[in-house]
Amino acid sequence: MGNTFGKIFQISTWGESHGPAVGVTIDGCPAGVPIDEEAIQIELDRRRPGQSDITTPRSEDDRLEVLSGVFEGVSTGAPILLMVRNKDARPQAYDHLKDVYRPSHADYTYQAKYGHRDHRGGGRSSARETIGRVAAGAIARRILADSAGVELVAYVRRIHDIEAEIDAASVARDAVESNAVRCPDSDAAEKMIERIKQLRKEGDSAGGLVELVARGIPVGLGEPVFDRLEADLAKAMLSLPATKGFEVGSGFDGTRLTGSAHNDAFYKDGDEVRTRSNNSGGVQGGISNGEDLVCRIAFKPTATINKEQETVSTSGEETVLKARGRHDPCVLPRAVPIVEAMAALVLVDHWFLDRSRKLS
Amino acid sequence: MGNTFGKIFQISTWGESHGPAVGVTIDGCPAGVPIDEEAIQIELDRRRPGQSDITTPRSEDDRLEVLSGVFEGVSTGAPILLMVRNKDARPQAYDHLKDVYRPSHADYTYQAKYGHRDHRGGGRSSARETIGRVAAGAIARRILADSAGVELVAYVRRIHDIEAEIDAASVARDAVESNAVRCPDSDAAEKMIERIKQLRKEGDSAGGLVELVARGIPVGLGEPVFDRLEADLAKAMLSLPATKGFEVGSGFDGTRLTGSAHNDAFYKDGDEVRTRSNNSGGVQGGISNGEDLVCRIAFKPTATINKEQETVSTSGEETVLKARGRHDPCVLPRAVPIVEAMAALVLVDHWFLDRSRKLS
Amino acid sequence: MGNTFGKIFQISTWGESHGPAVGVTIDGCPAGVPIDEEAIQIELDRRRPGQSDITTPRSEDDRLEVLSGVFEGVSTGAPILLMVRNKDARPQAYDHLKDVYRPSHADYTYQAKYGHRDHRGGGRSSARETIGRVAAGAIARRILADSAGVELVAYVRRIHDIEAEIDAASVARDAVESNAVRCPDSDAAEKMIERIKQLRKEGDSAGGLVELVARGIPVGLGEPVFDRLEADLAKAMLSLPATKGFEVGSGFDGTRLTGSAHNDAFYKDGDEVRTRSNNSGGVQGGISNGEDLVCRIAFKPTATINKEQETVSTSGEETVLKARGRHDPCVLPRAVPIVEAMAALVLVDHWFLDRSRKLS
Amino acid sequence: MGNTFGKIFQISTWGESHGPAVGVTIDGCPAGVPIDEEAIQIELDRRRPGQSDITTPRSEDDRLEVLSGVFEGVSTGAPILLMVRNKDARPQAYDHLKDVYRPSHADYTYQAKYGHRDHRGGGRSSARETIGRVAAGAIARRILADSAGVELVAYVRRIHDIEAEIDAASVARDAVESNAVRCPDSDAAEKMIERIKQLRKEGDSAGGLVELVARGIPVGLGEPVFDRLEADLAKAMLSLPATKGFEVGSGFDGTRLTGSAHNDAFYKDGDEVRTRSNNSGGVQGGISNGEDLVCRIAFKPTATINKEQETVSTSGEETVLKARGRHDPCVLPRAVPIVEAMAALVLVDHWFLDRSRKLS
Repeated sequence: MGNTFGKIFQISTWGESHGPAVGVTIDGCPAGVPIDEEAIQIELDRRRPGQSDITTPRSEDDRLEVLSGVFEGVSTGAPILLMVRNKDARPQAYDHLKDVYRPSHADYTYQAKYGHRDHRGGGRSSARETIGRVAAGAIARRILADSAGVELVAYVRRIHDIEAEIDAASVARDAVESNAVRCPDSDAAEKMIERIKQLRKEGDSAGGLVELVARGIPVGLGEPVFDRLEADLAKAMLSLPATKGFEVGSGFDGTRLTGSAHNDAFYKDGDEVRTRSNNSGGVQGGISNGEDLVCRIAFKPTATINKEQETVSTSGEETVLKARGRHDPCVLPRAVPIVEAMAALVLVDHWFLDRSRKLS
Repeated sequence: MGNTFGKIFQISTWGESHGPAVGVTIDGCPAGVPIDEEAIQIELDRRRPGQSDITTPRSEDDRLEVLSGVFEGVSTGAPILLMVRNKDARPQAYDHLKDVYRPSHADYTYQAKYGHRDHRGGGRSSARETIGRVAAGAIARRILADSAGVELVAYVRRIHDIEAEIDAASVARDAVESNAVRCPDSDAAEKMIERIKQLRKEGDSAGGLVELVARGIPVGLGEPVFDRLEADLAKAMLSLPATKGFEVGSGFDGTRLTGSAHNDAFYKDGDEVRTRSNNSGGVQGGISNGEDLVCRIAFKPTATINKEQETVSTSGEETVLKARGRHDPCVLPRAVPIVEAMAALVLVDHWFLDRSRKLS
Repeated sequence: MGNTFGKIFQISTWGESHGPAVGVTIDGCPAGVPIDEEAIQIELDRRRPGQSDITTPRSEDDRLEVLSGVFEGVSTGAPILLMVRNKDARPQAYDHLKDVYRPSHADYTYQAKYGHRDHRGGGRSSARETIGRVAAGAIARRILADSAGVELVAYVRRIHDIEAEIDAASVARDAVESNAVRCPDSDAAEKMIERIKQLRKEGDSAGGLVELVARGIPVGLGEPVFDRLEADLAKAMLSLPATKGFEVGSGFDGTRLTGSAHNDAFYKDGDEVRTRSNNSGGVQGGISNGEDLVCRIAFKPTATINKEQETVSTSGEETVLKARGRHDPCVLPRAVPIVEAMAALVLVDHWFLDRSRKLS
Repeated sequence: MGNTFGKIFQISTWGESHGPAVGVTIDGCPAGVPIDEEAIQIELDRRRPGQSDITTPRSEDDRLEVLSGVFEGVSTGAPILLMVRNKDARPQAYDHLKDVYRPSHADYTYQAKYGHRDHRGGGRSSARETIGRVAAGAIARRILADSAGVELVAYVRRIHDIEAEIDAASVARDAVESNAVRCPDSDAAEKMIERIKQLRKEGDSAGGLVELVARGIPVGLGEPVFDRLEADLAKAMLSLPATKGFEVGSGFDGTRLTGSAHNDAFYKDGDEVRTRSNNSGGVQGGISNGEDLVCRIAFKPTATINKEQETVSTSGEETVLKARGRHDPCVLPRAVPIVEAMAALVLVDHWFLDRSRKLS
């Protein structure tokens, strides 16, 4: 219940931050897909803490192990188990959190729902859970690229109130990877890095927006009425820790336009039906229309801060917490590969769903 | 594929705008639930076109029929089929749309995906499909109210650029129903109505925000890591026609705060653990924390307008469309009961999921 | 919960024997499938009571109505709702059953599970529920025939202790339909009919075996390890009322052979890999091997008999029941089209599942 | 696709016979369940090869490792990953099978479906896959015993043509475990052991029947119409390697009775409604009635034999195979714990399903 995602290309993540390992099982990967362990490792490294001086200094090696479903570098059609062992856990670093609920964390709700909680780094609610998503997403991405020609790029669009100027239609992964904050607007990136450092110094944290663009999506993906492409993307993104919102195309701002300004006029481009604008964000009636899929995800400021906070202890006393764990003052740079992974998982599943019922 | 929603309390909607009927099958309603046909009809009437002078003048009677699963006014545990016959269809009113793709509608993508489309009022992509959701949602709501004490209220928060001031903690359904635009701030409501009338006169349309608050939710609903409560709400809302975004609690605006400003401090209120602020919107770590659940849904301006628009015909020629169908210049007032229905469906399903594995 | 079957071609049946109607919703039928209402009606007529002098004299008209998903005789990709209204219900004919549990019926367990029961002809546990299965199965069958070249034939193999001699490899539907008992061995059929008449005269009933053969199944259907083709067939068949067993290929008798006698030797037939014997019944390792799929289903003797039986009343008193309802002394002739329908539903779903992940 | 079983207590098995490990992920185990690693290990040891002189001499250590979801011996509500590393694999022992399809094995169908196969011991179709089932089943069994008072016992009922006499109502696990063949009738057991040894000497193999009885099942488990308790049991059992049939209660033999002989008369036993006979096998209308659940599973003779067999090579030539792998001449003794595990998985899932929708 709750740890499984997708209908055909179905993934299940498992593992806690301070258990022996975390990972994912993929049930539904076709046979014959090249499983490139290096490519998966690159994505894990993009997600990994300790990449730069604006992320947490925890050093997690995060070496990929493949335990099943792959033979001589190719998927066999059997479930693929991908695993990363947990290291450098230092559970004692979390001892001061044992008896207290961290504000805006999952501590209190996990305790209430499950009758227990793992205070060591968040247990199952830890961002380490996303390792499995990223690993599975790398395979999904490969299938999409090879078989359907889809290209996915995510990047930091805003941190705190520093907004970047980025052309979604042309932005490339190289530009995203050119700085520590994964914002392809280098001027904005510099300011973002300064802001993050400043907030860290103050013991505080920042949130912002990640934007995702997917190009080359075949027309026809999405299964109305409930499994619309944007509905499944919304669910995928809101299932990520620290997210508070999702929008596609014109999103919230588009609601301030009139219909005549908002509608995307159709025209012919050679044999293709195209739209002059893309307020729809690549999806109409829940189905991809061949234009770029563009969406944005709101990440709240990191809940773990180095300031005193009013809270309640597990025994029910009001108390004051000063967190001392190692943590990111801003999760967005590391969220970029995770957002790409979730988008790839949604798209590959919808691609398989759409094909399943095409009568030739 | 795609027309089924929920895991335990599972609904399937069926029917097209110009077929004989539309409806819903509910598979998983417990035995013993009072099925109050009048209460369901009230919700259908709130959704119905032709309620006021700012909605479409189409008159749809929308009489509920119950075909199975109910005996002497009580659910039997068998599937419940709820149906509304289609009337006043006037398919000829859509003849001028037969050979043309309406911009920002589902016409083109349905044609591309299914190899056909029903030009008469949108077919399956018509808002009439939401009749089944509203009917099933009324039953879900009754279960939530009777068994878990949950109360749901949605209302129009903004239309175009006219934003209402509303206290989510205290807003009542009576205030929502007190005007045609379903905005409990009566000053704003008046302006909204004027704006809608003005835009209609201009052949144009408006979008805006619907806000939903759910009070009395038990602590513990939500199934991390994928089926977080807000993730399933996001999917539910983005599965509605004309939606472009979803946010919970502080949402997109909250990403402009620092962590110290955003975190919700815990305190004790008698025996209960409460939070001083509610930026979390009632959900932490994907699980309800007992505070009010608050979320907002972005609806784009109605795509059908009475202005000339550039488009392409089904035979592939560029052309100009001037729509003449009867339609709403703003869908938000009628979207209010639909948003409530979707929220009720998500919550009742999560309530059953959570209870299923409680070992006494 | 429990009224939905299939993953891609997903059906949900609904309706009770004495409610307004019974039917099925199909979610996942591809667009572009010819929906031949007459062909569906023929299958419904094969299932219908009152066909011959060895079935119940209840006259149920069972006229098919199509409420959604079909436009100009072709599926649109939207959910297809098929419905049959209930007639000739005579609920008062069941008044004597109101306060008593019929032995080996679902009366007691439904009462215990749902806190109520519908004594009028079995409610949801009535065989009328299978109308929806047969209607949906007819569409599945059409897809299998047109797109994959699969042919399905079921027939009565044994009634009571009268066993027919039938060559599964060559038996044709015409031979099955040539007599009232649907047994293509005409000598055995005659004896079966006599036996059924005799038992009815005695107020008693009989069970037996239905055998199904499916020819032309593509190699590769089945999704190990849990969704093996024979596992899903077993579930499909055991979900039918009055079934007590399922076997594939050599079945229970095959367990008396040694491995050397039981193994199916491979040989080449032109370019094809074939097996000399077919103890596997067309499935190896859970996947179709291209040989005929052959399975058998055990149906118990009808529980409703016209003899006095010891039982318990709903108020908890021991009592004696003498049933007087109209009923079949033997369900097998009418079970034949239902078995074919379930097989078609399983096969079409597996066909779509297999295709969904074929990378071209 | 295909490697996941259950709706609430959902398991996914993964791993191949000659990969690094095999195992299972359980998604949906409630928090607070004692996870007794020794009890799980005992079940794994019962399944393990090399237990006695009538099973394969392969020595597989099969040590359980728990990688997630358990904290201080108790389940946390997070996914539980259970793993066993593969040892003693000797892949070269299978080299002679590399280019040939073993008759009545999964070799040919896997090759056809997935475009490859793992000749080393069967890959995914190996019985090692059932390790995950047995491990998860041990947890399911613990929940059933502690929370619902259910007791499960399976045993060998027949091997080849040697049938045991066993009273299902009273048979105890100790009697089952008292001999190598797991048949509680010690006279029959002795003959079975002799028969197996004799057949092994001849290079041949035997099949037979496993019978399962479950006592103490609460009234009301089963979700008609498709997810009847016996339907899900049938699927569970037919998903096991080498199975050819399933029957519940009177099964195939019961179809030779008349209704008056077959019906189970109700009577009162104190406050309980009971049945005088149990031809229903504990299930009526798809729902448990509180009587013992009794079912039987047909296992074919082991396909791997040490005799020459006609077959076809992977390159399409007819050839002759003489298998030389280490294998069981009869799988039934080791199938007993696997059958128990599958029954436990079905029952615990249905128990959770039934509870999920009990109001108050």
